[in-house]
Amino acid sequence: MATLSREDCLARDRTDALARHRDGFTLPAGTVYLDGNSLGALPKATAERIDRLARHEWGTDLITSWNRHGWIDLPRRVGGKIARLIGATADEVVAADSTSVNLFKALYSALEIRPNRRTILSERGNFPTDLYTAEGLIKALGGRHRLQLVGRNEIVAAIDRDTAVVMLTHVNYRTGELHDLEAVTAAAHAADALTVWDLAHSAGAVPLDLNSAGADFAVGCGYKYLNGGPGAPAFLYVAGRHHADFTQPLTGWLGHAAPFAFEPSFRPASGIARALCGTPPILSLAALEVGVDTVLSADLHALRAKSMALGDLFIQIVEEQGGEGLGLTLASPRDASRRGSQVSFQHAEGYPLMQALIARSVIGDFRAPDILRFGFAPLYIRYVDVWDAALALVDVLKSRAWDRPEFKHRATVT
Amino acid sequence: MATLSREDCLARDRTDALARHRDGFTLPAGTVYLDGNSLGALPKATAERIDRLARHEWGTDLITSWNRHGWIDLPRRVGGKIARLIGATADEVVAADSTSVNLFKALYSALEIRPNRRTILSERGNFPTDLYTAEGLIKALGGRHRLQLVGRNEIVAAIDRDTAVVMLTHVNYRTGELHDLEAVTAAAHAADALTVWDLAHSAGAVPLDLNSAGADFAVGCGYKYLNGGPGAPAFLYVAGRHHADFTQPLTGWLGHAAPFAFEPSFRPASGIARALCGTPPILSLAALEVGVDTVLSADLHALRAKSMALGDLFIQIVEEQGGEGLGLTLASPRDASRRGSQVSFQHAEGYPLMQALIARSVIGDFRAPDILRFGFAPLYIRYVDVWDAALALVDVLKSRAWDRPEFKHRATVT
Repeated sequence: MATLSREDCLARDRTDALARHRDGFTLPAGTVYLDGNSLGALPKATAERIDRLARHEWGTDLITSWNRHGWIDLPRRVGGKIARLIGATADEVVAADSTSVNLFKALYSALEIRPNRRTILSERGNFPTDLYTAEGLIKALGGRHRLQLVGRNEIVAAIDRDTAVVMLTHVNYRTGELHDLEAVTAAAHAADALTVWDLAHSAGAVPLDLNSAGADFAVGCGYKYLNGGPGAPAFLYVAGRHHADFTQPLTGWLGHAAPFAFEPSFRPASGIARALCGTPPILSLAALEVGVDTVLSADLHALRAKSMALGDLFIQIVEEQGGEGLGLTLASPRDASRRGSQVSFQHAEGYPLMQALIARSVIGDFRAPDILRFGFAPLYIRYVDVWDAALALVDVLKSRAWDRPEFKHRATVT
Repeated sequence: MATLSREDCLARDRTDALARHRDGFTLPAGTVYLDGNSLGALPKATAERIDRLARHEWGTDLITSWNRHGWIDLPRRVGGKIARLIGATADEVVAADSTSVNLFKALYSALEIRPNRRTILSERGNFPTDLYTAEGLIKALGGRHRLQLVGRNEIVAAIDRDTAVVMLTHVNYRTGELHDLEAVTAAAHAADALTVWDLAHSAGAVPLDLNSAGADFAVGCGYKYLNGGPGAPAFLYVAGRHHADFTQPLTGWLGHAAPFAFEPSFRPASGIARALCGTPPILSLAALEVGVDTVLSADLHALRAKSMALGDLFIQIVEEQGGEGLGLTLASPRDASRRGSQVSFQHAEGYPLMQALIARSVIGDFRAPDILRFGFAPLYIRYVDVWDAALALVDVLKSRAWDRPEFKHRATVT
């Protein structure tokens, strides 16, 4: 079989039914941006939306915009749109706060609903901030709970009658490997345990059906595949059947049954609104809405198919071009159906390698100690981008272009 | 003494050294905006700043902007600027999350620092969401603490050896009455209790010196007198002497000593950074920075003097024009030194009255059951605005223009 060529990739772009979506984004010329899993690209409609929000809504209509322009509804409206991407009903999701804060709420509620169980079960390699959040909550609750960490293949076997909640990130942030959300949820339920899924690297890239899986709680990130902008508000899903029992300690006014009645005691809103806390950052939330709309404008299953094809192509080109002989080891599942929308390689010199790639305008990211992460946001990444990135990676390796002092200096954010 | 005239007010504007600051804001022509205590006006520089942030930083430099454009430093940088308005040092304040979430952190830490005390002491008329937050925290901590509510003049007498923390809002949201921050803090300290001050209606309008008062913790709002935009991130102040002991359960990655090391366990950052949790909403945070800059561009003591003069003038005109005979009762302290930057009147028909005023483009707000609130943001409110608002209020009363069905229908947000 002949090895692939750049022309082959250009040909695939020409017949890609999703290709037109790239026009909806601002992307710098000459850059291959494979970090949409960390910060999604700017939708062209966003700058206009936030400019109108600032000048017309805030600047002109001022305080009356909370009603007139529906600011007060934004957490639920954007949540309702995200619901369509994760297989939830519109009244099961809100957009608010950060992923960590929402995770805190979800875990708290899960422990309240299972008061006689002591264990939060998670994966040793889960995203650290999720583990930190569980630690912080356990400490706040007086230490009667424990965080049990096991290997990712030991999760199901570790669920027992003391497991209050299984907390997992659906797509592993380092390897991109998917958990089987349905199977783990079913296993948890078989032991009468609950589930909290972190969908940070899933929402907008991997079709999900939380309702049919029976998932209890989920959180996710607005600034990755949802293209909501830096630090965009996160989202929280609570299955409708838990709404009546949902309780969380961040009892701010927006979670109150009558936020404008200024009652002296907290009385939770019915439904998902009780998951809200303080006043949401409207500029960022409005930008998130535009980002979510970019995903809703495409067919999520078609996006998934393209995302898998992009990842497969990247692996194929890197291997055909000799990447494995240069110290690269595939760190992601080779089977695309077991991968999120990223491909990771391990390399002992991963950090300077990524810096050298960035210097050549191929932007991925590095995760300690040795992971090179390449995210393929199928809304705006082309097949030819995959070619260019793979070739740049192999060339940087062959030429040892990474072996320079300026690439070894560690910056704050990588 | 002759009663005041509109010309007198125009004359005061002509000699007002702060008058030029109004040019820094977008304000709709023909509107008298006396709700800057609820949502500050739009600084002209804001729309340009967020447009540049979106198009140039996010759109062009993408993920690298976290370093290149200092996004990662924004919570501390904006916090450092707010510190100058509240008498704190730059490394004692962060801008992040919502006021409620920050209050949760501050109260939690205070209770941790005073583990043998059970009482959060507050004022019965405190802003309800602050009371809700204390309730939520107490429940999370297992119910061993209590929220003790007393009248505002009974605070100092109620502090005892069981008081862990006194939680008060510096400027009462209904009446505008100020607490004596120094005296209450001193009384708390005399009983070895701590203080958490909510500066929502103070920061940017009332000069504060938290350090010389010895205040322990404070939180505040970015979208009122700081002009940060709808739902702007809030701020949290922790006195430097408490940093080593400061602990809070929202242990997200940005509060970690090494956020990018992805360590498996939480290890708090030294200093104020440990008060951070998740990724901040950068668009909203950048808008907040512009808003804070508008306040920093003026002399805060001159702003306070003007704010007091505006409030005094409003009371004087309303009274000279016969407002008291029409059912209005002053609900704020007459002595401006005991008032924040607002003047409130009670009226039995407060709700439709405010709606009728808004229909005449005089925008204040209503707080149940009977409070008409008029905020005077001295950066952009003119003496002539005070005249026009007072005359409109009296005219609406005299003409009973409020007595129409459409003004009695209660909207979601008032």
